[in-house]
Amino acid sequence: MRTQADVSELDPERVRAQVNTRLTRLFNEKAADQNNPHLSVMANAIRDFVAGGKRIRPLFAAVGWQGTGGTGDARQITRIAAGIELLHASLLVHDDVMDESATRRGKPTVHHALPPFYGAPTPGRKALRFGVNAAINTGDLAAVWADQLVSTAGLTHAQRSKVMPLWHSMREEVLTGQFLDLRHTGCPSRDLDVACAIVHLKTSLYTITRPLQIGASLNHAEPGTLDACAAYGNPLGEAFQLRDDVLGVFGDTEETGKPVGDDLTDGKHTVLAALALRHTSPADRRELQRLLADPGLDHHGVTTARRIIESCGARDMVEARIADRHRQALRALETAPLSDPAKEALAQLAESCTNRDR
Amino acid sequence: MRTQADVSELDPERVRAQVNTRLTRLFNEKAADQNNPHLSVMANAIRDFVAGGKRIRPLFAAVGWQGTGGTGDARQITRIAAGIELLHASLLVHDDVMDESATRRGKPTVHHALPPFYGAPTPGRKALRFGVNAAINTGDLAAVWADQLVSTAGLTHAQRSKVMPLWHSMREEVLTGQFLDLRHTGCPSRDLDVACAIVHLKTSLYTITRPLQIGASLNHAEPGTLDACAAYGNPLGEAFQLRDDVLGVFGDTEETGKPVGDDLTDGKHTVLAALALRHTSPADRRELQRLLADPGLDHHGVTTARRIIESCGARDMVEARIADRHRQALRALETAPLSDPAKEALAQLAESCTNRDR
Repeated sequence: MRTQADVSELDPERVRAQVNTRLTRLFNEKAADQNNPHLSVMANAIRDFVAGGKRIRPLFAAVGWQGTGGTGDARQITRIAAGIELLHASLLVHDDVMDESATRRGKPTVHHALPPFYGAPTPGRKALRFGVNAAINTGDLAAVWADQLVSTAGLTHAQRSKVMPLWHSMREEVLTGQFLDLRHTGCPSRDLDVACAIVHLKTSLYTITRPLQIGASLNHAEPGTLDACAAYGNPLGEAFQLRDDVLGVFGDTEETGKPVGDDLTDGKHTVLAALALRHTSPADRRELQRLLADPGLDHHGVTTARRIIESCGARDMVEARIADRHRQALRALETAPLSDPAKEALAQLAESCTNRDR
Repeated sequence: MRTQADVSELDPERVRAQVNTRLTRLFNEKAADQNNPHLSVMANAIRDFVAGGKRIRPLFAAVGWQGTGGTGDARQITRIAAGIELLHASLLVHDDVMDESATRRGKPTVHHALPPFYGAPTPGRKALRFGVNAAINTGDLAAVWADQLVSTAGLTHAQRSKVMPLWHSMREEVLTGQFLDLRHTGCPSRDLDVACAIVHLKTSLYTITRPLQIGASLNHAEPGTLDACAAYGNPLGEAFQLRDDVLGVFGDTEETGKPVGDDLTDGKHTVLAALALRHTSPADRRELQRLLADPGLDHHGVTTARRIIESCGARDMVEARIADRHRQALRALETAPLSDPAKEALAQLAESCTNRDR
């Protein structure tokens, strides 16, 4: 019998609080490790960096677990959800190094937070270089701890044989997506397949489908249930990322907290960019291509690029795709072998992922 | 009964060949993965990078396994030894990014090999930046695969409970050592404790003791056996690293394949540097400190630094330490609960680690 307590597990605030508590405990243990007293600077840097995330991946993992029975020790799912979040933090630390970003969520990125810990008394160029190198190293450490959380979650042999392949796949997929993204950043093209592959790997699988499946696998979910997770997660991930694409070009910087048109200045090879390059006039295509490849794109250039993307209909096409993928995700829920509270939570998450202004 | 076949497992060439075969199989599988066709560029880059290493860590893991019985499925130890080597490769890929090294073992580093795969037809500054970012990403992927090899080695619950904590510790330790190393590179000091901590974490534990213990743990080695591995591995690791320190300052570039006095030009905070700064005259100390902090150190500077380090007796002190730690390691072998062929192999490895010119 499903009790009220089970349902309340689906409360996003509660999942966030549990994951945060687990992560804080880990960072405190590491910072105080008597066997390795030199861990503390990195442990504190990761702790500060991790604070304030939306915890969307842990949320999907928790719903996947809850929606398939939510049986067994709840500490397992909390631990694994925390591992998923920490893996994400490790990738963001590296992402910030790659993008040379100074801040994230209004706070300094790790490579900007670490230079004061350089060994020389007078900071300078060497301390900045140290910040970058130590951040690469700190990201590596966060990935090790993520793995430690997952692999010491006390899974049975049967659980392990279901969960671990998904955990490995998820990491491989996001790194492949990131590789494709890097490869085409600064040189977007009309290649819609590559743009879609990036979305599939970095968002559909990594952000939604795999966390859901990992949560469900703790309850020994059948292949049919895992397929249902994908039938919901893959289109929703696409809608989620396409919303990001639109915000990255047309978003209000006050709402998004990101620079105006940052996907344009970064020259991101998004579905939106690929569609615009396909559907605009030859003259505008050459102009847009030039603008997207310009590392020093100014406000005037952003305005021109926005005009081209809007007037050729690419923005509308993306909005139509978002609505379509959102519908697909909801339709998949109808027949999914998941509990009603889980379906309700997933429908709400689908809404908040696609209709948002930041 | 110990058979001849068991002994031949200790043949370093055979261990290398088995590990290489396992790694090649992994890279080929990944490059041909139908589910993820975009893995191939990174798989090939890692394959090319991994070729040609000395496989010293797999060797210690194999001896640890063989010396404690070498029972069970030999594919387990091969798989785990390959995982240890691949973890090392992932760290070297990041290390080369940190050091901005163009070559390793006479071949291009990963961030120098990847720029041709950038998406734009005309390579340029963006392609170089892509190389660095994609190398960070490729190192991350190699670490995931390393973990995959270890965690899918088919260990029993009892084996896992012994092996995995060591695997996690080893990764945590090497990243802590690397953090300390980065923190003090370019600003070496008289702090001998920090120099020794770097050696302990990056070489004693990571290169020798943990691989040995991991190999032994596959055979459910008792705590006493693991202690014996440390009693041998920790001093030998120190001797190994101190030999590196001497070669990094006084080595013949024809033999080492590295630039003349690269530890000096990099400003490494080694035990050798710390001892020299402690034991030289105040005037020479100021001069040495200045030279070691100079990123543009020239041939004349290298010669001066060498003279100071040699004349204050620091080189002799380090040589005496190497001899002492080597003796300690051999003494630990006398009472170690390991098989005779393993002890013989470890004595030979101790010799080759400490008396070498590259």
